[in-house]
Amino acid sequence: MQNSYRLVIDCPDRVGIVARVSQYIAGQGGSLLEASYHADPLARRFFMRTEIAADTLAVSPDTFSSGFAKIADEFSMNWHLRDASKPRKVALLVSRASHCLADLLHRWRSGDLQCEVPCIISNHESMREIAGWYDVPFFHVAMPADAEKKRLGFAEIERLLVQHDIDTVVLARFMQIMPQALCARYPNRMINIHHSFLPSFIGANPYKRAFERGVKLIGATCHYVTEALDEGPIIEQDVIRVGHQHDDQDMLRLGKDVEARVLAQGLRLHLEDRAIVVGNKTVIFD
Amino acid sequence: MQNSYRLVIDCPDRVGIVARVSQYIAGQGGSLLEASYHADPLARRFFMRTEIAADTLAVSPDTFSSGFAKIADEFSMNWHLRDASKPRKVALLVSRASHCLADLLHRWRSGDLQCEVPCIISNHESMREIAGWYDVPFFHVAMPADAEKKRLGFAEIERLLVQHDIDTVVLARFMQIMPQALCARYPNRMINIHHSFLPSFIGANPYKRAFERGVKLIGATCHYVTEALDEGPIIEQDVIRVGHQHDDQDMLRLGKDVEARVLAQGLRLHLEDRAIVVGNKTVIFD
Amino acid sequence: MQNSYRLVIDCPDRVGIVARVSQYIAGQGGSLLEASYHADPLARRFFMRTEIAADTLAVSPDTFSSGFAKIADEFSMNWHLRDASKPRKVALLVSRASHCLADLLHRWRSGDLQCEVPCIISNHESMREIAGWYDVPFFHVAMPADAEKKRLGFAEIERLLVQHDIDTVVLARFMQIMPQALCARYPNRMINIHHSFLPSFIGANPYKRAFERGVKLIGATCHYVTEALDEGPIIEQDVIRVGHQHDDQDMLRLGKDVEARVLAQGLRLHLEDRAIVVGNKTVIFD
Amino acid sequence: MQNSYRLVIDCPDRVGIVARVSQYIAGQGGSLLEASYHADPLARRFFMRTEIAADTLAVSPDTFSSGFAKIADEFSMNWHLRDASKPRKVALLVSRASHCLADLLHRWRSGDLQCEVPCIISNHESMREIAGWYDVPFFHVAMPADAEKKRLGFAEIERLLVQHDIDTVVLARFMQIMPQALCARYPNRMINIHHSFLPSFIGANPYKRAFERGVKLIGATCHYVTEALDEGPIIEQDVIRVGHQHDDQDMLRLGKDVEARVLAQGLRLHLEDRAIVVGNKTVIFD
Repeated sequence: MQNSYRLVIDCPDRVGIVARVSQYIAGQGGSLLEASYHADPLARRFFMRTEIAADTLAVSPDTFSSGFAKIADEFSMNWHLRDASKPRKVALLVSRASHCLADLLHRWRSGDLQCEVPCIISNHESMREIAGWYDVPFFHVAMPADAEKKRLGFAEIERLLVQHDIDTVVLARFMQIMPQALCARYPNRMINIHHSFLPSFIGANPYKRAFERGVKLIGATCHYVTEALDEGPIIEQDVIRVGHQHDDQDMLRLGKDVEARVLAQGLRLHLEDRAIVVGNKTVIFD
Repeated sequence: MQNSYRLVIDCPDRVGIVARVSQYIAGQGGSLLEASYHADPLARRFFMRTEIAADTLAVSPDTFSSGFAKIADEFSMNWHLRDASKPRKVALLVSRASHCLADLLHRWRSGDLQCEVPCIISNHESMREIAGWYDVPFFHVAMPADAEKKRLGFAEIERLLVQHDIDTVVLARFMQIMPQALCARYPNRMINIHHSFLPSFIGANPYKRAFERGVKLIGATCHYVTEALDEGPIIEQDVIRVGHQHDDQDMLRLGKDVEARVLAQGLRLHLEDRAIVVGNKTVIFD
Repeated sequence: MQNSYRLVIDCPDRVGIVARVSQYIAGQGGSLLEASYHADPLARRFFMRTEIAADTLAVSPDTFSSGFAKIADEFSMNWHLRDASKPRKVALLVSRASHCLADLLHRWRSGDLQCEVPCIISNHESMREIAGWYDVPFFHVAMPADAEKKRLGFAEIERLLVQHDIDTVVLARFMQIMPQALCARYPNRMINIHHSFLPSFIGANPYKRAFERGVKLIGATCHYVTEALDEGPIIEQDVIRVGHQHDDQDMLRLGKDVEARVLAQGLRLHLEDRAIVVGNKTVIFD
Repeated sequence: MQNSYRLVIDCPDRVGIVARVSQYIAGQGGSLLEASYHADPLARRFFMRTEIAADTLAVSPDTFSSGFAKIADEFSMNWHLRDASKPRKVALLVSRASHCLADLLHRWRSGDLQCEVPCIISNHESMREIAGWYDVPFFHVAMPADAEKKRLGFAEIERLLVQHDIDTVVLARFMQIMPQALCARYPNRMINIHHSFLPSFIGANPYKRAFERGVKLIGATCHYVTEALDEGPIIEQDVIRVGHQHDDQDMLRLGKDVEARVLAQGLRLHLEDRAIVVGNKTVIFD
C-alpha cells in the first residue's frame, strides 16, 4: 500500500472550491488516489476529502500546508492534512464484555486497523489477560458507585489518556457515563458503541427492552460521544434479524456480532478520516 | 397447490399437548404439510400451527372441529381451524401515497396474496383510477379536520367495512389515527405500515426526523393496530441503508420500497395464519 | 428539484484532471451539486461525474461543451454533458412475467424514474392491458421457435426501437436471447435483469437450479447486455434469504421482489448517469 | 440454561409420525422446550427436531432410547438422541489466515459455542501462539507440495483426529484439499468455510475472480465437506456489499468478517443439531 496524505476540508459552499484546491494540489505535483465531495444544500456547506499519493508531492507536508493555509483562509475552511503513515494513538476502554475488545485487538494485530494502541483501561480486572497477550499495557481503574470515588476514577482515566498522548478514545463496551469535561477534551475523537439501533432504546438494557417490545431486528450504533447520552453524531449502524424464539439473552449473544462489526467499521472510518462531523450528523466518505 | 386446513393453537404450556393434538389429527387420517411449535418459557405458553392436507382428512372440517373442541377445552386453548381455500376479505385503506396500494393490488392480482379485496376506501379521490383498473369498488370518505365531521367519516368507514363483511383491515399508508372503537372491532385484524423502524420515530414525519438525527439506516414496521398509536404487536420490519447524500425527500423515496415490501410480507403472514399475537408481541411461524 | 447538467468523464489518469475540469466549470460560474471521482490504480484510468446547477452556468450547454472539448481532447477523455431536464427514451421489453414491468411503470408514473416510455414491446399479448392503463403504446411481436421467423421478430423489434427513437432498452424479464447486432446497436444502453446472483446459475431456470443446489440466499443481477449471455457489466445485485421450506416455486415468488427492486435501482443509476462502464465492469457513483 | 436432550429424526413421510413420537415423549413425562418439523413433499421425507427438558424425563436417556428404538424401527427412522450437556469434540484446522480461528476461539472461550476443542492442527507455525494463549494443544503438520509427503501429512492429521477422539472437524481456512478417505471418515461432520457465495467462484482465489467479474456483493459459504470440492451441502451463507472502490485485497479484508460470522453460525447450527443433511442439501431448524 503506497503512502498518502489526506486533505480533509469543510467550508461554506461557493463556486470554485474544488477548482482552487485541486489546482493547488496539481501545482505541487500531487496525484489523487481518491477524492470525495459533498455539498449540503440545506447547510450550504461543502465537504471534501482528498487522498494524495505521498511520493508524487514535490514538497514536504509542512510546505504544502503553509501554502494551503492561504486558500483555507480565503474560503474559511476547517481543514487538516494527515500523513497516513503516522498512525493515531487509540486508547481502548472496556468493562466486562470482551467481544468488542477482542475483535478490535485482532483486527489491529492483523493490520486491518491502522493505529497504535498504547493502553487498555478497564474498571474490571478481567481483560488484563487478553491485554497481556497482545502486549498492550493494561490499567485497572476502579469505578465505585460512590460519586466522589467515581470522580477520582475518571480523573485517573484522564491522566492515563494524557500520559499516553492519546488521540482517540474508544469505548468498547465501557459501561460508564463519561463526564462532560472528558467528552469535551476529545471532541469528535471519542467513539462509543451502543448496543441498539439508535434512537431506539436509548440508555440502559436495550436488549431487554427490544425483547419486551418484540422488535424483529436488533442493531448497534457507533457514534461520537457528546455530552448528551447516546445523542452524538452517528458514524455507522447495522442490524440483524431476531424472532420470537430469541429471548433477551439470545439477543445479547446475537448482538455481539453486530456490535463488534459496527464498532470496527466506525473506528476504521474515523481513523481513515472518512467521517466528518457537521452539527449532530456525519458525512461519511466511504 | 393442494388445499389445506390450518389449525392454530395457543394455550398454557404443559406436557402432552403435541402428543394429544397430533394423535387426534392422525386419528382422522390427517397428513401434515407443515408444523411449527413454540414454547415461551417466560409466559409458560405453547404455540402451534399445523397445516393439514385437506384431501387426507376422513371427516368434514365441522366434524373435525367438534371433535377437537373437547381437547381444546381440556388444554384451555385459544384455537381456530381455517380452510385455506376460503380467502379472507380484506379492505385496503389509503390516503395519498400510492406505492403500498399499487404493490398490494399487483401481488393480489398475480395470485401472490391469498385474499379477496371487496373495497378500497380513501380520504382522497386520487386512488379511484387505480381501483377501477383492478375492478375493485372504490369509496371516497371525507376526513375533514373538524372533529365531528371526522367522527362521521369514521362512522362511514365502519359502515362500509361491515357492509362488505370485511375480515381484515389494511392501513396501506392511511394517514388518519383510527378511533378506539374501530380498533377494538378488528382485534389483531387491523394492520398498519409505519414508515420507520419502530420504536424509533413514533408518530408523524419519521423520515424528516430520521434525516435530522442522521441515522444510517431507515426502515418500516408492519404491526397490528391497537389503541396505543404505533405501539401494537410488530409483525415484520426491515431497513435499508442511507447516507449523508440523502435528504428527507430521498429517504421518503427510498423508504417506499421497504414500506411496500414489509407491508406485503406482514399481510401475507397474517393471511396465512402465521402471526399469532401474544400480549404485545407476535409469534411468527415463517 | 433544481435543474442540472451532468458532466461524466473517463480518461487516462494523470496529475491535474480535477484541477483543470473544476477550474473550467468555476470559470463558467458553475456551482457543483454533486461530484464523484474514482482513480483505478490497475487500469490507470480516472472517472468523474459532476452535477452542475443549471441556473448558475453563465453560458448555454452548447457553448460550455465547445469550450470543454479542448480540455477533453488534451486529456483523451470519453465524456458527455447531459441536460437532466431532458429525459431519455426507454423501451420496455417483457415476456410473460409482469412484476418488473408493473413495478417500473408505477415508479415512472410516480415520478421516481426520470425518463420517457414511448413503447412497450412483448412477445405475448398479456401485457397489453397494463400498458393501456398507463397509456403507453403496446406492440406485440411474435417470437416463434423457428429461427427465420424469430429473426424477423427481432428485425421488427429493431424497427420499433428506431421508430420511437429509443435511447435505452430495458429487458424487464424478456425471455429471449438478443441477437448480436441488436446488442451492438445499444452499447451500454441495453439493460437486463437476470433472476440469479450472477455468476451463479448463468442461463435458464436459475431458481430451479438454486433450489437443487440448496443455497441459502437467492438473488438478482441487473447488468448491461453484451454478446456474451449473462456476462455483461453488472450494475446492481441483491439477495434474500431462503430455506429448506421453500421450493423452486416459492423462490420464484420471493425472487420477484428482488428482481423488481434490483432492476429499478439499476435503471435509475443508468438514467442518472451514475453507471460508467469500464471493460466488463462498472464504476457506480451512487 | 436448563439441560436438555435433543431428539433428531429423519424418515419417510406418512401419517402419524408426530403423534407417535410426541405421545412417547409425553409418556415419559418429557416437556418440550422446542420442536421443529418439516415435510419435504418432493422427497416424501419427514424431518423433526425436538428438544426435551432433561429434568422432566422420568427415565434415563438410555432407557428412553431403548424404548424409542421400536418406534424408530417401525417408521424406518434415522435418528439420534443427544445429551446437550455433553459437548462434542471439535478439531480446528487452519492454514495462514487467522481470522476464523481467532473468532471461533473467542466465541468458544466466551461460552457461545458449546463444544470442546482438544486440538488445533495447522500446516504453518504461525497459529501456535494464539493456540497457546487459549491453552489448546497445537500440532504442526507439514503439507509439502510433493504428493507422497502430503499423503503422509494427511495420515498424521488423521492420526491426531483419532487420538483426540474428534467428533467434528472444522476447516477454518485450511487451504488443502482433503483426501477422499478422510472426508468419508467424518460424514456430515467435517465443516468448511468457502470464501465465496457458492456456487459462484468454486475453487481457488474467489476474491480475485469476484473482483475481475465486477460483482456488487461478495459472500461466504459454510458447508459440509464431501468428496466433490465445494459441492457439499450448504449450511449457511451470507454476503456484503462491495463496489468499484474495492480491489481484490479490500475484498479479502471485507470478506474476513463474513467468513468468520458464517463459519461460526454454521458450526453453531451443527453443534446444536439444527442442521440435517438430506441428499446434497440441508434442513436447518433455526
